[in-house]
Amino acid sequence: MEPPDSTSPPTPQAPDDPVVVSGIQPSGRLHLGNYFGAIRQHIELHKQHDAFYFIANYHAMTSVDDPDRIREHALDVALDYLALGFDPEEAALFLQSDVPEVTELTWIFFNHLPTSRLQKGVAYKEKVDAGLTPNAGLFNYPVLQAADILIYGGSRVPVGSDQKQNIEIARDIARRFNKTYCPDDPLFPIPEPHILDDVAVVPGVDGRKMSKSYDNTIGIFDDGDELQEKVMSIVTDSDPLDAPKDPETCNVFALIDLFADEEKTKEIAQKYREGGYGYGHAKQELLGLIEEHFAEARDKREELKQRPDYVRDVLREGAKRARKRVEPMMERVRELTGLVRTH
Amino acid sequence: MEPPDSTSPPTPQAPDDPVVVSGIQPSGRLHLGNYFGAIRQHIELHKQHDAFYFIANYHAMTSVDDPDRIREHALDVALDYLALGFDPEEAALFLQSDVPEVTELTWIFFNHLPTSRLQKGVAYKEKVDAGLTPNAGLFNYPVLQAADILIYGGSRVPVGSDQKQNIEIARDIARRFNKTYCPDDPLFPIPEPHILDDVAVVPGVDGRKMSKSYDNTIGIFDDGDELQEKVMSIVTDSDPLDAPKDPETCNVFALIDLFADEEKTKEIAQKYREGGYGYGHAKQELLGLIEEHFAEARDKREELKQRPDYVRDVLREGAKRARKRVEPMMERVRELTGLVRTH
Repeated sequence: MEPPDSTSPPTPQAPDDPVVVSGIQPSGRLHLGNYFGAIRQHIELHKQHDAFYFIANYHAMTSVDDPDRIREHALDVALDYLALGFDPEEAALFLQSDVPEVTELTWIFFNHLPTSRLQKGVAYKEKVDAGLTPNAGLFNYPVLQAADILIYGGSRVPVGSDQKQNIEIARDIARRFNKTYCPDDPLFPIPEPHILDDVAVVPGVDGRKMSKSYDNTIGIFDDGDELQEKVMSIVTDSDPLDAPKDPETCNVFALIDLFADEEKTKEIAQKYREGGYGYGHAKQELLGLIEEHFAEARDKREELKQRPDYVRDVLREGAKRARKRVEPMMERVRELTGLVRTH
Repeated sequence: MEPPDSTSPPTPQAPDDPVVVSGIQPSGRLHLGNYFGAIRQHIELHKQHDAFYFIANYHAMTSVDDPDRIREHALDVALDYLALGFDPEEAALFLQSDVPEVTELTWIFFNHLPTSRLQKGVAYKEKVDAGLTPNAGLFNYPVLQAADILIYGGSRVPVGSDQKQNIEIARDIARRFNKTYCPDDPLFPIPEPHILDDVAVVPGVDGRKMSKSYDNTIGIFDDGDELQEKVMSIVTDSDPLDAPKDPETCNVFALIDLFADEEKTKEIAQKYREGGYGYGHAKQELLGLIEEHFAEARDKREELKQRPDYVRDVLREGAKRARKRVEPMMERVRELTGLVRTH
């Protein structure tokens, strides 16, 4: 693995030597869906590989125009990641806006992508189909994402399966750029999506996929009455206490399954099937599991909240590490494309 | 007028105190159409007002992917402007790529413009209608242009009448940004187009509007046989030498009219009407006028060509002046939008 403080431009990586790049959209309090769908894997991967995790505040602007929310949500993500085990010694966690070069690379990439590709963008089309008028930020979102990946020489991108289309755009742009400007010595590795486990479709309290837009989330750092209330509100069928129940179709059990170890899961499934075990019991069990799982993180988050300077330092150091990678990369890009700088 | 080296963020300008901003696309050798359509006015305006003229190499990438051409054309424009009378003491002439912040502002602006506005873009639609697949750079071109204007607090934009639509987009973006983030203390002045004289529709050698895409141009710095050949090839009717002729319908006369003073123009019109004055005579007259008009500029250009370091210095100083303006502006933009920087 290339040392993180290397100043040489990244070169195409062998698949066994990946540079992991991922963006985290700072769109409010993170929830269990985010945790099992992405964060857990981010935390794991950053210990094994060279990793660049950026807090995507440029992306967040496509849907949020309140500066306080943009600011606070970004810093909240940093708190969350540090609390959940991100180790700033291991990899880079930083604000996207600390690397404005991604917007320059975005502009360069625009010229190597037919507009029609963006017109087929899923997020864009959804809005259009819903009769809305999406802004050009949403339209151009996949190109910024491509720049975010390629600027670090990213070769492995942990994403949900819904992001496949965008990764395909990043791959196409990398290929086109290499072919146009440096066919014999390709600058950008072709990034591989690292599709995150499908198991991790986490049900929300209403049984649909947990998602902020459905307002059915349980926050990672919810606690006390708020957490209890949410867990108790999880939708179940109305089978009586005595009746045997099918764990496989139960939202509460699906969540328990994510938190409990194998033995515990088996034990509870058994109780479901035997009858005499009500949904109230299962919810109490789940509540305990959630509290236990995040107990340490919750304490750490409280502690970090008192140390905003430390959090800022982490982000500053992360940005420094990212910029060390970006500067030689962008110098090379400008050289290859003919974009002179006089200073 | 605000002194050009002021470091305070530009504030909305009174109409009588304009900041002139204009981009020059480095798309090859400049021709008489460029000269009478824009350059002449640029040269005049920069002596009267605070002016920022950028050589638009980011824009050029939408249609050129040859790095040598991007590089050389940009430096050629600098040579041309200096030869034609641009005075680097008076205003800023610089490379667009020396102010990469415009791409960051472009990203921010995307989020304040409905995609549908860009779908109506004239240049984009022309390509689509011609069955071509325009790249996303061409599609997004007007937003980069808006950023280029507004980042300097531009309030007056000398453009041809074909650019009206793009200026309207810049005006809309400025209004939306101000309304969203700073309604009580608007950051961006609403730029006014300074539509360049319609008189200056310059005929090419085939009688159509002079344009690179029609391959009918006479270069500002064409000389010797090349210039003679082009002037002699200007299309006229086939009236014999003796016949009286109508100057108003003659391409040669239209060009003479642009170069000659009033008295001279009248004199030649008289000769046309009297008869006995052939198109060959008129072309000789025009050739002399062109040679005389650009004699000094041609010499100066030859001299400057021997001093690439000087040209580079001019661009570097221009960029410095531009950046002095841009830095406080972007700091304010980031503050208003919530885009934190940790360094």
